[in-house]
Amino acid sequence: MVGGGQLARMTHQAAIPLGQSLAVLAESPDDAAALVCRDVHIGGPADPAALRAFAEHCDVLTFDHEHVPGGLLRELQAAGVAVYPPPEALIFAQDKARMRRRLAEMGAPIPPFRICASDELHSAVPDFAEEVGWPVVAKTASGGYDGHGVWMVHDPAGIPPIPAGVTMVLERHAPLIRELAAVVARSPFGQAAAWPVVETVQRGGICVEVIAPAQGLDPARAAAASRLALQIASDLGVVGVLAVELFEVPVSDRAPDGFTVNELAMRPHNSGHWSQDGAVTSQFEQHLRAVLDYPLGSTLLTAPVTVMANVLGGALDSPGAGIGMDERVHHLAARFPDVKVHLYGKSFRPGRKLGHVNVCGDDPTALQHRARLAAEWLGSGVWTDGYSSHGGEHGSAYRQVVLRADGVTGTRRSEGQKRV
Amino acid sequence: MVGGGQLARMTHQAAIPLGQSLAVLAESPDDAAALVCRDVHIGGPADPAALRAFAEHCDVLTFDHEHVPGGLLRELQAAGVAVYPPPEALIFAQDKARMRRRLAEMGAPIPPFRICASDELHSAVPDFAEEVGWPVVAKTASGGYDGHGVWMVHDPAGIPPIPAGVTMVLERHAPLIRELAAVVARSPFGQAAAWPVVETVQRGGICVEVIAPAQGLDPARAAAASRLALQIASDLGVVGVLAVELFEVPVSDRAPDGFTVNELAMRPHNSGHWSQDGAVTSQFEQHLRAVLDYPLGSTLLTAPVTVMANVLGGALDSPGAGIGMDERVHHLAARFPDVKVHLYGKSFRPGRKLGHVNVCGDDPTALQHRARLAAEWLGSGVWTDGYSSHGGEHGSAYRQVVLRADGVTGTRRSEGQKRV
Repeated sequence: MVGGGQLARMTHQAAIPLGQSLAVLAESPDDAAALVCRDVHIGGPADPAALRAFAEHCDVLTFDHEHVPGGLLRELQAAGVAVYPPPEALIFAQDKARMRRRLAEMGAPIPPFRICASDELHSAVPDFAEEVGWPVVAKTASGGYDGHGVWMVHDPAGIPPIPAGVTMVLERHAPLIRELAAVVARSPFGQAAAWPVVETVQRGGICVEVIAPAQGLDPARAAAASRLALQIASDLGVVGVLAVELFEVPVSDRAPDGFTVNELAMRPHNSGHWSQDGAVTSQFEQHLRAVLDYPLGSTLLTAPVTVMANVLGGALDSPGAGIGMDERVHHLAARFPDVKVHLYGKSFRPGRKLGHVNVCGDDPTALQHRARLAAEWLGSGVWTDGYSSHGGEHGSAYRQVVLRADGVTGTRRSEGQKRV
Repeated sequence: MVGGGQLARMTHQAAIPLGQSLAVLAESPDDAAALVCRDVHIGGPADPAALRAFAEHCDVLTFDHEHVPGGLLRELQAAGVAVYPPPEALIFAQDKARMRRRLAEMGAPIPPFRICASDELHSAVPDFAEEVGWPVVAKTASGGYDGHGVWMVHDPAGIPPIPAGVTMVLERHAPLIRELAAVVARSPFGQAAAWPVVETVQRGGICVEVIAPAQGLDPARAAAASRLALQIASDLGVVGVLAVELFEVPVSDRAPDGFTVNELAMRPHNSGHWSQDGAVTSQFEQHLRAVLDYPLGSTLLTAPVTVMANVLGGALDSPGAGIGMDERVHHLAARFPDVKVHLYGKSFRPGRKLGHVNVCGDDPTALQHRARLAAEWLGSGVWTDGYSSHGGEHGSAYRQVVLRADGVTGTRRSEGQKRV
């Protein structure tokens, strides 16, 4: 697997019971996956020599991100390397301009869009806004993630200063009911399987919470979303996990089934982390089954509802900042013996994804409450029972914790791992 | 963790989501755990220099077997190393003579026993048999596992030839209803948690199947068994997982609750493998929580019934012997998309534990059937739908497969791992 982040880390975890040991091409020996894998190769994903040597070592090449140049992958593929997803599919996750054009050709429900060069933005954005109204969403066609490379443009003064030579995608900003994700997997043989459609909750462009399955979703709408994701996987020739991020919107000509496609990812995705504890087959095991050309596993649920909440690093001056992760896990385990913790072994940084929690059960409201408490505690060292840190449009966990700060500063303890 | 076998391999798998990376002291880089861990140290468990160096590298020392000399552990403990379980507890899992004496002192239900030296066997066995009747079970006090070091002695001619200087335990062979196991965990703080009592099915001294929870077990009997296991953990000062192997027997003065204690193990145990897929917290995660001094996780079930079946290597001349493990997994996945496979990355040997499968659901009979089919297929490359390979007292999967052999011999293919 190219990339040594948390997705590779959790894929290795899923590889162990399959009798496999994941080889990872990591940028640093301290990468999340490199900490737990035996077979670690150090090199950048765009370094041709490193990638060629790594590919020679592997039977199958797959990815935990989208940053490997397509030309390099086509070259490896031509040399006989099994590249999954293949570069001709992956390009649609790497390049939003191609993705939009291709989905438009397929007749998939998408918002009105326009593709332009970055040096045309000052004419293209107002022109496009005249057609679809303000605000306009501007995205770089490639290289964005977790809200990076996306701007909400409310007027010509808000047009971002992008260097020349960058392909941009402009989209209408549609008021949405909520965000959904349809996650599926497809094998080289063409077998495909879908997990139930989930609700994803974003804050500041980052997925912070997933409710699986999405509650109160019209079954016909859910079925249409799953069908669309399976269709995209098939039409694009995806091998592995495909996450289709959706906006649930009022039914219209452009959204006959009540949703539009926002983004595609062709790898295990944050919106599928719940499946580690809430489904018979996790997205990580499924991705491996797919790229190893095994038949896919059951996507049935193991609990009526699972809520996933991301653990984001809190503010450095949070009142809980002095509490090391080891102590945080200790207290969490005491309070919530059924919460499943998934930590990535990453060093602390405010706002950084350090891990996630999954909570399974029956009552979505109660599960959501517990998952939020658990994730915020792990991220910030503060229990937020007594106030909501999710209230306002502009609220964020760490900001509100700072408001509560009462002079306790304390330096963070070492986060060295206990080695057993 | 001292020992690099499948228990360490699966403990590493459970360590990853806790943000940990297991360090293992393995005898070979090809050991099951060494294949999947980053932090591998090579050395024998009884090599003082290797063990001391390894202990210095770790915050906590724990074990995937019982083969570390107690003296060495007491020395490390005296030097300040956190040894869990502590040597003064572990001794009762290492030495069956001490275990029997200690359980007798505790008033735990155990069969009549006698301890003797190996050179006294020829007088002690008939003498003991006069008291309790033939046959007599003779065990070496230490070093046995999976049926090794245990003999069923039906008459004086059957007394095994054991070299002088070995401590032996003689026990009455009691007709039993079935075998059970009560698996619990205890933290250094003294917190303890029990999974439901399970039924274990042995063949040739090897656990081949576990049904969790044990079906049709009187709830009072189950509760008494769990209480006893928790009591043993507490009285002995166990830290980590404790598996208490039990014989379910008719109620008597010696077995007032309908069971007697057979063996103790102080580590994750074959009888707890079902918990990986059938409980909120697996025995591997629980063992880590205990030895890391975290509060223990929930032991609630995630499905009404889970059946575990061990994958044992089939005969070399089995008709399916030519089918590589990769193809076996492929076919298994196609037939049973919900069966959870756990492979240990071990090379093939007839009768060797290569892995296990877990199947979760409602109907114990159907689950048992599916688990057996899956495990036999993975072990022998033969589907045994049409006949029972578990019928006779002396039957075994591979023996019956040989009976069916029809001239297909074929050499085994390479079992090299696919590296991703």
